[in-house]
Amino acid sequence: MAEPGSPSFSKKVPAGDNRERLVCDGCGFVDYVNPKVVVGAVCLWEDRLLLCKRAIEPRRGYWTMPAGFLEERESVEEGAAREAREEAGIDIEIGPLLGIWSVPRISQVHVTFVARMRTPTFERGLESEEVRFFAWDEIPWAELAFPSVTGALRHFEKVRDQPVFRPFVGPLGDR
Amino acid sequence: MAEPGSPSFSKKVPAGDNRERLVCDGCGFVDYVNPKVVVGAVCLWEDRLLLCKRAIEPRRGYWTMPAGFLEERESVEEGAAREAREEAGIDIEIGPLLGIWSVPRISQVHVTFVARMRTPTFERGLESEEVRFFAWDEIPWAELAFPSVTGALRHFEKVRDQPVFRPFVGPLGDR
Repeated sequence: MAEPGSPSFSKKVPAGDNRERLVCDGCGFVDYVNPKVVVGAVCLWEDRLLLCKRAIEPRRGYWTMPAGFLEERESVEEGAAREAREEAGIDIEIGPLLGIWSVPRISQVHVTFVARMRTPTFERGLESEEVRFFAWDEIPWAELAFPSVTGALRHFEKVRDQPVFRPFVGPLGDR
Repeated sequence: MAEPGSPSFSKKVPAGDNRERLVCDGCGFVDYVNPKVVVGAVCLWEDRLLLCKRAIEPRRGYWTMPAGFLEERESVEEGAAREAREEAGIDIEIGPLLGIWSVPRISQVHVTFVARMRTPTFERGLESEEVRFFAWDEIPWAELAFPSVTGALRHFEKVRDQPVFRPFVGPLGDR
């Protein structure tokens, strides 16, 4: 047992579990660490796509769709709408699920929707240095910020004319 | 600054963030807490469904499909297959995504697949007191363990005859 006020943790397999976790030597608290969910949306106004140029690292100056970590007590669809509001100042209606891209190497799960903007207005958020519309043939493929953005847009390209489609499910890149 | 060996955390809004997090007074480490992902599958052999009777709390003695927390460095589809192996001793081929049920009240996101068993063999895992097949009209609806199980089976009932269907996306229950 550790003294109060100086917690120390040891790697142990908790009862009923089958893998090592960090367990507090004092109180037995198990520090479960699990993958995080990133929620985002391919945001459309009529035939045009809205992208944000990142004002922050990583990949500052590259283009992305609005996306970010899901927060406590949020549904995935609420989180995707919040990120669109925060990063691009837009009001979106969440449409069909585009896919779930897992990134095992960094323990992330990207849940991405297709969304329609309710109005064409947008406003640059703190994390964006520019926000603008792109026609499909204007998309700056070489200047996209992350493989998750490229993957989402390529899958959208494949399914955009189908009224009902199967969302992408698979890993993104290598582990 | 706290002394080394006696970390203390304060609630603060980190730079560039917009909500309070626990931040270490000593080193500035931000303890981000985010929802956890539960992965599972509706597991089928021909027309029958495999369910597990829970040997552990919560809901000991009630029926569930194999499901559990996604682990670090796993894709969602790998996690669902692992849970099926651990809880029911079955080898499954992951099929279409059935849905994403968010449970904001407890900050969980349930990702559930339809899966086919590669062989009809199964074996009770440590967390199950019984594992068996059910024909559709034998499903013990009143003895299902969680609303997530009922939700998944009801959605599967709705889409099972469609070659391509839209996965469920929405919250499960109240917050």
